[in-house]
Amino acid sequence: MTEIMQPRILTGFMELLPEDQILFNRMLDTIRKVYEQFGFLPLDTPTIELSEVLLAKAGGETEKQIYRFNKGDHDLSLRFDLTVPLARYTAQHESELVFPFKRYQMSKVFRGERPQKGRFREFYQCDIDIIGLDELSLFYDAEMPAVIYRVFKELDFGPFTIRLNNRKILNGFFRSIGLEDKITEVLRTIDKLDKIGEENVRKELAELGVDEEKTERILSLIHLDGTADEILSALDGFGIEDETFEAGVAEMKEVVKNMRLLGMPDEAFKLDLTIARGLDYYTGTVYETTLNDYPKLGSICSGGRYDNLTGYYTKQRMPGIGISIGLTRLFSQLKEEGLIKPERRTLVEALVVPLGKDQMEAALKTAAALRAADIKTDVFYQEKGMKQKMKYASRLGIPYVVLIGEEEANNGTVSVKNMDEGQQVTVPLNEAIEMIAK
Amino acid sequence: MTEIMQPRILTGFMELLPEDQILFNRMLDTIRKVYEQFGFLPLDTPTIELSEVLLAKAGGETEKQIYRFNKGDHDLSLRFDLTVPLARYTAQHESELVFPFKRYQMSKVFRGERPQKGRFREFYQCDIDIIGLDELSLFYDAEMPAVIYRVFKELDFGPFTIRLNNRKILNGFFRSIGLEDKITEVLRTIDKLDKIGEENVRKELAELGVDEEKTERILSLIHLDGTADEILSALDGFGIEDETFEAGVAEMKEVVKNMRLLGMPDEAFKLDLTIARGLDYYTGTVYETTLNDYPKLGSICSGGRYDNLTGYYTKQRMPGIGISIGLTRLFSQLKEEGLIKPERRTLVEALVVPLGKDQMEAALKTAAALRAADIKTDVFYQEKGMKQKMKYASRLGIPYVVLIGEEEANNGTVSVKNMDEGQQVTVPLNEAIEMIAK
Repeated sequence: MTEIMQPRILTGFMELLPEDQILFNRMLDTIRKVYEQFGFLPLDTPTIELSEVLLAKAGGETEKQIYRFNKGDHDLSLRFDLTVPLARYTAQHESELVFPFKRYQMSKVFRGERPQKGRFREFYQCDIDIIGLDELSLFYDAEMPAVIYRVFKELDFGPFTIRLNNRKILNGFFRSIGLEDKITEVLRTIDKLDKIGEENVRKELAELGVDEEKTERILSLIHLDGTADEILSALDGFGIEDETFEAGVAEMKEVVKNMRLLGMPDEAFKLDLTIARGLDYYTGTVYETTLNDYPKLGSICSGGRYDNLTGYYTKQRMPGIGISIGLTRLFSQLKEEGLIKPERRTLVEALVVPLGKDQMEAALKTAAALRAADIKTDVFYQEKGMKQKMKYASRLGIPYVVLIGEEEANNGTVSVKNMDEGQQVTVPLNEAIEMIAK
Repeated sequence: MTEIMQPRILTGFMELLPEDQILFNRMLDTIRKVYEQFGFLPLDTPTIELSEVLLAKAGGETEKQIYRFNKGDHDLSLRFDLTVPLARYTAQHESELVFPFKRYQMSKVFRGERPQKGRFREFYQCDIDIIGLDELSLFYDAEMPAVIYRVFKELDFGPFTIRLNNRKILNGFFRSIGLEDKITEVLRTIDKLDKIGEENVRKELAELGVDEEKTERILSLIHLDGTADEILSALDGFGIEDETFEAGVAEMKEVVKNMRLLGMPDEAFKLDLTIARGLDYYTGTVYETTLNDYPKLGSICSGGRYDNLTGYYTKQRMPGIGISIGLTRLFSQLKEEGLIKPERRTLVEALVVPLGKDQMEAALKTAAALRAADIKTDVFYQEKGMKQKMKYASRLGIPYVVLIGEEEANNGTVSVKNMDEGQQVTVPLNEAIEMIAK
C-alpha cells in the first residue's frame, strides 16, 4: 500500500476553485480584449531566464526575492517582473521588430517574499508598454490612461480614478529649491504621505536636513488640489523658474488635453502631485489608479514613462511608457471585499440528461447537435437517480437541463428545463437549440 | 557607462515574434473554445510546488529532469506536467468539487532535458481530464476522441487520424499466451515498431525470451488492419479466451458505437493494436493522433484511461481519463513544415494617420470612435513623412489605414485606404466604421 502524502501547496500561491477560476479568466479576457483594441501585440517570454542576463540590473531587495537555481551548467532565475524580460527581448530582437513597439504580456511572475496578507509569491502581471527608438511621442502618455480607463470601465468594479503626475515637475521643483541632491530620499518620503501622515513626513524631511521653509514649500506643492485645469493654472502661478519644471507642466497640459480628445471624462482622472512612484527609472508622466470606494486597496494599476528601457542590453536608446495590473493581488482583494461573486459555478450552458440507458443514444446525438450550435454542453452519463442528476446540474449552476425520456427519444423532441425559473417545455430539438442559444 | 550584457535566452525555450505569437495564441484560443464546448472547467495550478508533494510518485528519468531548488526552508520544484498537479488538486479539494470533475488546463510545464531538435525545456500542455469518484462511465472514452476530433477539425491542419487501442486487449492477450510477467517489456518493444521496424522488434522479443510461436501470435495481433468493424470482428474470432481480453474488446465496441453517435465520421478514427502508450498507469482505452500527411510528426495528441489518479494523495479511488496536446512542440513542428504561416503580422484592424500636426485632434477622436465600435485601432503619432507612416502600416500588415488631412478634419470625413487592394475612399466617419467593422 502506498503511503499517503498530504496534498497541499506552499503559502503565498493563489489556487482557485473552478467557479472562481472562471471569473479570474474572464478578467484576463477583458483586459486582453482592451489591450488588443488599442493595438498592442502579444508577447510570451520564457519563465526561466539566464541569471546573468535577467539580473544585469537588479540588486538589493529584488535580488533577494529571486527564485534562482542551477541546472546543469546554467545559473537560472524565474522572472520577477515582465519589464526586464521586455527590455531583454526588445534589445535582442530590435532588427525584427516594428517601432514604436506596442506589446502586451499577461503572465505569472515570481518573488520569493516572506508570505504576508495580500502578497503573493507567484502572481499575474498584465502589462502594456510602448517602446520607441530614440524618441517616443508624448501622445502615448495620454493613450496609457485611455487604456486604463477602458479596462476598468469594462471590468466594472465601480468608480475609479486615474491619478497622474509628471516626474519633471517634481524634479524641477526640487532642483529650484536646492534639494537636487536629495530628490530620491525626499520623493521616497513624500510617497509615504498617505501611509504615515503629514506629521511623520515633516519629521522625516527634517531628518533628511530639509529646513522648515522648504518643507512648507514642498507641502504646499503636493497639497495642490482641485480640477485638472485648476491645478495646471496653480502650477503656472507657483513661481518656479526651472526648465524641467516648466517642461513637466507643459507635458501635463498636453496629456490632459489629449486624454479628453480620446474620450475620457474629467471625473476619470486627477492630477496628483504626491505621486512619485518608487522606481528610479520613471522620468515623465506617472500613473496610479484607485477604486474610489475602496481606497485601502491602494493603486491597482500603475506605471509611467522612462527614458531608456534597454540600457543594460544595447547602446540604442529606447524610451518607453508602460502600465501594469497586478491581477492576482487585485482579484484576491476584490474577492475579500465581496466585489467578485461567482454568478455561476460553470461555463456550461446545457446538461443533457437521458432518463434511462435506452435514451443514451438520443442523448449523445443531442449533445453533438448542441455543441455543433456552439452551445457549451455536458452530458450526464452516470446511471443514477433523477435527484442526483438534477443535483449535479444545480451544484454546477448549469442554466438548462435537456431531458430525454422514452417519449422524447421516439418523437425527436427534448424537454428543456430552465433551472433558474423552474419551468419545463417539451419541444423539437432545433427549437431547444434556439431557446438555449438565446 | 553601463556595460552591455548580450541579450539572450537559454536554448530549448520557445520565444516568438509578435506575428507568430498571434498565431500561437489563436491555437490556444481554439483549443480552449472546444474544451469549454464539451463542458470542461478551467484550472490554473501553481508553477512552483513543494518537491515532497509533487515528486511523491516520480522517479528515474522524470526526477532527473525536474527544475528543483531551495528557497528559505522550502524544497521546491517546477511542475513537469499537468497530471500530477491535477491529482494533488483533486485530492486536496475533493470535498469542494463536483464529480465527475471535468477540467482543462493550458499552462507551461518545465523539463530540464538536454536540448535537442524539437524538444523544449519549457512548453505548453493543453490537457483535459475527467475524474470520477470510484467509477467513471465508459461514455467518456468516446467523448475524449470527440473532443480531439473537434479540436483538430477547427485547427484545420488537414486530415488527421485518431488511433485507439485498449490496454485490456493487450493485457488479456499477453496473459493468455503466458507472457503476463513480461507485459511491460513486451509492450515497450511493440511501442517501437514504427521506429525500429519488425525485424528489430523480433530480435528484441527473442532477447526477452519470447519464443517464435508467441512472437508470430503477437505480430499477427498487432498487424490486424482494416476498418473498425473488421478489426472488432477479427478480435472476436482471434480465439483468445481471457476475461480481460474480452472486456477490452467489448469496451472498444462500445466506444466505437458512441463515437459515431457523437458525430465522428469513420475516417477520423482507426483501431490500432500497436498503441500501448509508455506510461504505466493507462488501464483501458488509449489514444494517439497523427496528421495523415505528416506521419513523421508522431502523435500530436495522446492520452487514455487510468484506474486511479490520486493514489499518492488520498485513499479515495479516483479513476480518470484524459488527453494532452503538447502545443509548443506542435507549433514548432507545424511551422517547420510550412503549415503555419502568418497571414498578418498584427491583430490591429485600423491605423489612424493624421497627415499633419493640426489633424492630431481629429485623429484622437477618430481613434476613440473606432475603438468604441470594437475595432482594434492604432494611431501613428510620430511626426514623420507619409512614406514612413505607410511603411509602419504595411510592415505590421494593418488592413485599413484611416487618413485624416485638413479637408477630412474640416468635413468630419476620413479617407480609408484598403491596404490589400490599394483603393482609397473618402467617407463620413460612421461609414468608415461600418466598412472596417465588416
